[in-house]
Amino acid sequence: MTTSFTIAELAALTGAEAVEGACAGPVTGVAALAEATSADLSFLGNAKYADGVAVSRAGAILVPVAFAGKPAAGQAFLRVANPSYALALFCGVLEARLWPRPPAGIHATAVVAASAKVDPAAHVGPLCVIGEGAIVAAGAVLEARCHVGARASLGADCWLKPGVVVGDYCVLGARCRIQSGAVIGSDGFGYEPVNGEIRRIPQIGNVVLEDDVEVGANSTLDRARFSQTVVGRGTKIDNLVQIAHNVRIGRQCLITAQVGIAGSTTLGDHCVLGGQSGVAGHLTLGDRVKLGAQTGLFEDVPADGFMNGTPAVPFGLERRLVVLSRRLPDLFKKVDSLTASLDSARR
Amino acid sequence: MTTSFTIAELAALTGAEAVEGACAGPVTGVAALAEATSADLSFLGNAKYADGVAVSRAGAILVPVAFAGKPAAGQAFLRVANPSYALALFCGVLEARLWPRPPAGIHATAVVAASAKVDPAAHVGPLCVIGEGAIVAAGAVLEARCHVGARASLGADCWLKPGVVVGDYCVLGARCRIQSGAVIGSDGFGYEPVNGEIRRIPQIGNVVLEDDVEVGANSTLDRARFSQTVVGRGTKIDNLVQIAHNVRIGRQCLITAQVGIAGSTTLGDHCVLGGQSGVAGHLTLGDRVKLGAQTGLFEDVPADGFMNGTPAVPFGLERRLVVLSRRLPDLFKKVDSLTASLDSARR
Amino acid sequence: MTTSFTIAELAALTGAEAVEGACAGPVTGVAALAEATSADLSFLGNAKYADGVAVSRAGAILVPVAFAGKPAAGQAFLRVANPSYALALFCGVLEARLWPRPPAGIHATAVVAASAKVDPAAHVGPLCVIGEGAIVAAGAVLEARCHVGARASLGADCWLKPGVVVGDYCVLGARCRIQSGAVIGSDGFGYEPVNGEIRRIPQIGNVVLEDDVEVGANSTLDRARFSQTVVGRGTKIDNLVQIAHNVRIGRQCLITAQVGIAGSTTLGDHCVLGGQSGVAGHLTLGDRVKLGAQTGLFEDVPADGFMNGTPAVPFGLERRLVVLSRRLPDLFKKVDSLTASLDSARR
Repeated sequence: MTTSFTIAELAALTGAEAVEGACAGPVTGVAALAEATSADLSFLGNAKYADGVAVSRAGAILVPVAFAGKPAAGQAFLRVANPSYALALFCGVLEARLWPRPPAGIHATAVVAASAKVDPAAHVGPLCVIGEGAIVAAGAVLEARCHVGARASLGADCWLKPGVVVGDYCVLGARCRIQSGAVIGSDGFGYEPVNGEIRRIPQIGNVVLEDDVEVGANSTLDRARFSQTVVGRGTKIDNLVQIAHNVRIGRQCLITAQVGIAGSTTLGDHCVLGGQSGVAGHLTLGDRVKLGAQTGLFEDVPADGFMNGTPAVPFGLERRLVVLSRRLPDLFKKVDSLTASLDSARR
Repeated sequence: MTTSFTIAELAALTGAEAVEGACAGPVTGVAALAEATSADLSFLGNAKYADGVAVSRAGAILVPVAFAGKPAAGQAFLRVANPSYALALFCGVLEARLWPRPPAGIHATAVVAASAKVDPAAHVGPLCVIGEGAIVAAGAVLEARCHVGARASLGADCWLKPGVVVGDYCVLGARCRIQSGAVIGSDGFGYEPVNGEIRRIPQIGNVVLEDDVEVGANSTLDRARFSQTVVGRGTKIDNLVQIAHNVRIGRQCLITAQVGIAGSTTLGDHCVLGGQSGVAGHLTLGDRVKLGAQTGLFEDVPADGFMNGTPAVPFGLERRLVVLSRRLPDLFKKVDSLTASLDSARR
Repeated sequence: MTTSFTIAELAALTGAEAVEGACAGPVTGVAALAEATSADLSFLGNAKYADGVAVSRAGAILVPVAFAGKPAAGQAFLRVANPSYALALFCGVLEARLWPRPPAGIHATAVVAASAKVDPAAHVGPLCVIGEGAIVAAGAVLEARCHVGARASLGADCWLKPGVVVGDYCVLGARCRIQSGAVIGSDGFGYEPVNGEIRRIPQIGNVVLEDDVEVGANSTLDRARFSQTVVGRGTKIDNLVQIAHNVRIGRQCLITAQVGIAGSTTLGDHCVLGGQSGVAGHLTLGDRVKLGAQTGLFEDVPADGFMNGTPAVPFGLERRLVVLSRRLPDLFKKVDSLTASLDSARR
């Protein structure tokens, strides 16, 4: 697979507002400033790396429109509004070449139930299993060894990486992208003590992913006890995340790796949960709520709240408590010294 | 699949002590109070939602025997000892219709070793693999793409969801229920430094799940260094839980999502571990020990202990420390003011 | 499978410096001191269990050279430099019998792309999928249902347990050992807000595991945004670990279960990360850095640093802060009493 681009092609692909200088040859790859060669496109994504531009050997560099520096000899600057986004546009072109959409059709080794409806424009890879009454819409891609359960449904242009499990009755909207090993629709964890034994509560609901939801590798989303576990349109879920039964996540949220959300909790839109944070069950989080990494949240949070720590408190308070807690050794000494002073004053 | 029930059928299925009022038509589903329609059964599972009963449009509502309210017109109350459990009984009926036991037999695409013994009354789904000398008892259900390793053994009526891995030599008792992606019998994480290199310690034991154990999606249970990693009868393990080598968990425990238990730790019976909590290695926890969510436990806990925080302390102390730590800003001010007072008193 | 060893064979296999006493019959297994029978080899791996030797019924016990005790009648002591390592040597012999290397060849049900190059001395198990242009070197073992993506490459003697996914373009060195359900090469979690929507940043890099890397069950390693996510030679990763895009881990590190390392962070050699610890993105950790269990690290750490707590501080300070924080109730009382004393002194 050859990928070779002239500076003019790069400028067009990245929406450059201006080109400055010229690179010696074609660009064939992408690399960070420090690692790039004359055949690479690089970028200044964060002002703190600005010093790296002057010493970079990249053939072409995406820089902010107002960036003060000048390209070296044999180097081109592409001035863009947002270098990181511009790079993503170029990477998208590379990605489409690295992962061309596989051809429509069902691999001979896939096991597709007679009553399943697989659109002729979908791709079903080797050793996939599609259950009775399942629906796979046009443009969907199931890479190898995926499972789509009975009466489950995949919207148009969904892309499942190898080894995804979509459980029975679950529904994915259009353009959902699911990484390997993710499980959509495992049983919720519901039990009742009955006569000293733990009895399972049947979990008869499903999971609904709205359009453009993405789910990371080996994440698990439990089906509802009844009705639905819902992930709103455009929300992105990272790897190894646990979403319990009857959770409802709003739109355009970012749920970072190893987060856990307990049963029946509701999140608004545009929430951002930091890595390894946990949210207790039956809570309500408003729109745009943020949780720091490793936060343990045990209470409702209104819109725009930013919570941190375990148990979580508002971010500003948590920062203050952390600073003060590190001054505890001084505080203990101070109190001892006060006690001594008072004792000596009394004598 | 049609599911339609008269109020008399519902009363019988849920063990209602009394029926009050009458619903207009048959009940065909289950929904929460706020979402239910006249065709739904709903329930009052928690007294704090009692106000929701009066405004619910549910055709039938499971309420506690002594509940004070009255049904609306066209609505029936089913008075039961435990509405949540009664609902579970009804959901169990629905579940059996949604997930009928698949027919006995081995799918043509399964790969079963010649020396494996699969009971004719077991179901082995498409693309399963069963190793040499493995045993699958009567009534076991292996949904698609499950793996049962060499000389592993599944007890009667085990149910493996799609994509479960049971490693070589591992043993599951009767009625174990394993969610997709769970791995029973991965190698333990054991290494020794030898001449500056890390050398693997062979892990030659297995994992034993006693009867009625359930394991959540993508959870991992490591085989013992030697002898056995054991999960006691009736214990339920949620999603993404890590059980290290040589751990021994007692009976009827609840291990919530994303918990990690390090090597050689022993738990008694009826323990409850909150979500994302972690237990260090080589510890002993007595019967009925409870850990709060995100707890980090580094010491033994006697029976009935309830620990919280990281590093964990008894729950009552932890609650007190949390309250006091939030008053640190006041304490620092108070000490500063005391110092100032004493200084001025001295002058 | 019969495994039966004379004391002379055991002495040779474990490199014993001296044999003392004699066991009644052959040794056929391995067990802990308390559980061993006369047919078992046991060991004293930790001085705190020394009392267990005198009451053990083991037929043979590996003890340190200088251990003071004497064997019981019908029991042999094998005196060795490192009993735990000596046991591992013996377990290695048992492991090779329990898991004999499967024969070379490709199972009839595996789906291997025409352009893939599988060495004739590799084993490809049932229902594996190997993509276009992939390379599998001599001696590699792919147990059942493994996936090797397009243009991915497995070095000599790699061993993949059932259900491993190696994504497209990823590269594994020699002797890598990957547990079931691990995903090497899922997409990195990279998004940009564009006009109020979250837009995916293409992830076009790969994952490189150097020689002798081991990865635990259901762990996830994301491919780089571009260039490589790298795990250095000899590093061992436990179960359910998350390694984000562009992370670079040095050599001979131990990454314990449920750890998460965020994007673009770099670790030196010989680092040890405790269970459930988390490391924020874009950090640099020097060689031999240690993190305690559940640590949340948000800053760079120089070589030999040992950090603990959330947010992490040096281990010694964290221990001191924990001790002092538990004395907060006393401190609050002391300050109240000081205030009262000062008030009464003033009156």
